[in-house]
Amino acid sequence: MLETLPVDYQFHHHHIFGIEQLSAQDITHILNTAQSFKEISNRPIKKVPTLRGKTIVNLFFEPSTRTRMSFEIAAKRMSADTFNISASTSSATKGETLIDTARNIQAMQPDVIIIRHSSSGAPQLLAKYIDASVVNAGDGAHEHPSQGLLDMMTVLDHKGRLDGLKIAIIGDIAHSRVAMSDIIGFTRMGAQIAVAGPLTFMPMDLAGLGVEVCSSLEDAVRDADVVMTLRIQLERQNDSLIPSLREYSRFYGVNNDLLKFAKDEAIVMHPGPINRGVELSPDVADGERSVILDQVTNGVAVRMALLYLVLGGNKASDGQGEN
Amino acid sequence: MLETLPVDYQFHHHHIFGIEQLSAQDITHILNTAQSFKEISNRPIKKVPTLRGKTIVNLFFEPSTRTRMSFEIAAKRMSADTFNISASTSSATKGETLIDTARNIQAMQPDVIIIRHSSSGAPQLLAKYIDASVVNAGDGAHEHPSQGLLDMMTVLDHKGRLDGLKIAIIGDIAHSRVAMSDIIGFTRMGAQIAVAGPLTFMPMDLAGLGVEVCSSLEDAVRDADVVMTLRIQLERQNDSLIPSLREYSRFYGVNNDLLKFAKDEAIVMHPGPINRGVELSPDVADGERSVILDQVTNGVAVRMALLYLVLGGNKASDGQGEN
Amino acid sequence: MLETLPVDYQFHHHHIFGIEQLSAQDITHILNTAQSFKEISNRPIKKVPTLRGKTIVNLFFEPSTRTRMSFEIAAKRMSADTFNISASTSSATKGETLIDTARNIQAMQPDVIIIRHSSSGAPQLLAKYIDASVVNAGDGAHEHPSQGLLDMMTVLDHKGRLDGLKIAIIGDIAHSRVAMSDIIGFTRMGAQIAVAGPLTFMPMDLAGLGVEVCSSLEDAVRDADVVMTLRIQLERQNDSLIPSLREYSRFYGVNNDLLKFAKDEAIVMHPGPINRGVELSPDVADGERSVILDQVTNGVAVRMALLYLVLGGNKASDGQGEN
Repeated sequence: MLETLPVDYQFHHHHIFGIEQLSAQDITHILNTAQSFKEISNRPIKKVPTLRGKTIVNLFFEPSTRTRMSFEIAAKRMSADTFNISASTSSATKGETLIDTARNIQAMQPDVIIIRHSSSGAPQLLAKYIDASVVNAGDGAHEHPSQGLLDMMTVLDHKGRLDGLKIAIIGDIAHSRVAMSDIIGFTRMGAQIAVAGPLTFMPMDLAGLGVEVCSSLEDAVRDADVVMTLRIQLERQNDSLIPSLREYSRFYGVNNDLLKFAKDEAIVMHPGPINRGVELSPDVADGERSVILDQVTNGVAVRMALLYLVLGGNKASDGQGEN
Repeated sequence: MLETLPVDYQFHHHHIFGIEQLSAQDITHILNTAQSFKEISNRPIKKVPTLRGKTIVNLFFEPSTRTRMSFEIAAKRMSADTFNISASTSSATKGETLIDTARNIQAMQPDVIIIRHSSSGAPQLLAKYIDASVVNAGDGAHEHPSQGLLDMMTVLDHKGRLDGLKIAIIGDIAHSRVAMSDIIGFTRMGAQIAVAGPLTFMPMDLAGLGVEVCSSLEDAVRDADVVMTLRIQLERQNDSLIPSLREYSRFYGVNNDLLKFAKDEAIVMHPGPINRGVELSPDVADGERSVILDQVTNGVAVRMALLYLVLGGNKASDGQGEN
Repeated sequence: MLETLPVDYQFHHHHIFGIEQLSAQDITHILNTAQSFKEISNRPIKKVPTLRGKTIVNLFFEPSTRTRMSFEIAAKRMSADTFNISASTSSATKGETLIDTARNIQAMQPDVIIIRHSSSGAPQLLAKYIDASVVNAGDGAHEHPSQGLLDMMTVLDHKGRLDGLKIAIIGDIAHSRVAMSDIIGFTRMGAQIAVAGPLTFMPMDLAGLGVEVCSSLEDAVRDADVVMTLRIQLERQNDSLIPSLREYSRFYGVNNDLLKFAKDEAIVMHPGPINRGVELSPDVADGERSVILDQVTNGVAVRMALLYLVLGGNKASDGQGEN
């Protein structure tokens, strides 16, 4: 349960670059909207006409199956038309090329461009040159706001609140845009974050974000309401920062022994895809505490909400009735 | 013409793994349904609202253009929303990963997952972990049920019956999931199957299926109503099982000389894509007896029927009127 | 402003192979139709039901993002169902294979096949074997008619006429299907074409087309109403026909110094994607005279018109009202 929004609250974001730009009220409004859209995916006819005639472009400079598909499903369940562009980053190493690509797409008059790019800040750069709404689907090691929002929605579903919770995040904090979005978001909503992992995976500047950096996994997980572990992003490491996956699993994998330090009713989260037996033991991944698949389900609802809201919310539609 | 179904017949399959699981009545019902859907593709407006708001995922672990597109056309002509996922088998070598992929897709609440996979049994494995209907679009050398059904539909179109026909199948029986689905299906509907081909292409266990294994192509084709030749599946052979394509064509290619042994009105079939001049001489492929393109046309109708039926038939829809 | 069409004019093209087959009246009718469709892309709901239930296949044997997407957007804004097939030319080196592919797609009963192929004449070959309308999206160095039409539409938007204008085309004329379509189209509409570029980029047979081949860029551009520069098609050159990109830019790049020779109100065009700093200096590409993004916008409108017209125009639809 989140606080009630003031009567005069208005969502005014045309772009979604990161959780950084969203106030606690904005986050509350997005999560409320996502909750109201969630039941659409349970209907026999999973489709509302809300975004009919809208053009939504998935512009992915990094490979992605699940995030791309989650946005595509969200868009089509709102009756938007979707277009997928898979671009190799190599053909866009110069900022100019990204801008030219963006302006060319803009000239075809899309309503939303969902972008994933290996460079932090690419969505903001894009937004300078186009009129369409830009939604960040992951930029470098910077932010992955829809993941942060779906994580908050999932915790809220299970805990009924965000304020005052302890969230442990284990693993590769430094290379994870998921961690960054979660840290900013949960902190803004009043939760406490504790992180742990190999030293080479800890960024320098966590203290300023109000995050507790723990020297042991046990300390991070102790009395936590939520234990989140991150995917090892091998593709975003310049060097071998960990000796081996086997050792990583032994010292930093989340298993039932570690979970004994958390609260009894603690839930376990992972942004997927899981490296089974590395970040997470299989019995935990498939266990009662795991809410990993709830995260995926909520992802569709959060993305429906984001597309709806950047396009002006009820101003953009004829209503949300059945199609 | 197929036998009339009993009044209380009900199609009760939630998944389509293979022809193996379908009774003669089920096959009759699918072919009748496909026949009733066939004219939709001849309309100026090729679209009915039957599956509006349904989410259909093409999950292809092997490359495919025509089968994937046939399913996609079938789905869209029924107004479903379609999503294509091309996964490389390499990223899914462990069974666990396929299951994780499946459960993640399931969490986005699709209605049907159409899967093609290089491992026999992958569709059944998938179905254990998800609620959505699973339709097998080809699993290893096991089954390709929609191909078997479209082959039966095509023979029925041209011969008016299946019972009592002689069907000759020439070529790579052992590596062909098409052959397996056809053998099971035609046999179940009362047809006789005779096969011929290089010894290395003959599976061990055909006698148990009631199939006549012939030592010469002439014997197999003699008095046949249907002559079906198979694509050489070079990609599914571990070794070079045939000396050369040239010799294959000479000894095992279907040409007009061979067809003299068949009945005068025999038809020629091939699941495509054709290796012209290898399995089939060009004059036969393009000749009057060839019904190869009818097979493709019927493929769309059969897949419309399968999607409709696994989703509950008329229970799933508002009717089949024009959209 | 184009001449008024006679009362009994009828567009009768079932296929669009090139500008070559289009009369001045046909071009006028296409541009008028495109102009009437252009505002659809400015609506809040960018969708009309005109081509509902039509099956449109993008069959691309060469990689393309922007042309493929422009056609896809055009089709979906008319409510057609679209299907993308990316085929590698390597699997289609034999003409037979292209024909087999085409006939297989035809058997799925599409309404339009949009084809891009590295071989000149591939669309005509295709059309011999299928009933669906064929629209050429670029065939070898032959024609790219939708590009030629969108170029004419853009000039008409800015100049109000085509007749009597001077159009300078700079660069790789010999390897450019864009140049060929533009030369035929603008000439047919009464404009004068002057070309310039490296000798190795000049085709032999331009004189017969009524084109002025200039020995210097200055001569070509002098008093021009339109200065069009072409992308260097490195992928379609057999040898290194230019010493280096740096020298190309120095001697054949379009910059503000060169534009002083053109008319004061001359516009600058480029079919995209731009090799910035090679064919075009950045200040020109982004300057006031550049209408490059208008070309992209008009591309969607022209392609909507082409799809509409090959499908029979108002005979194909229930009207163009809002969906």
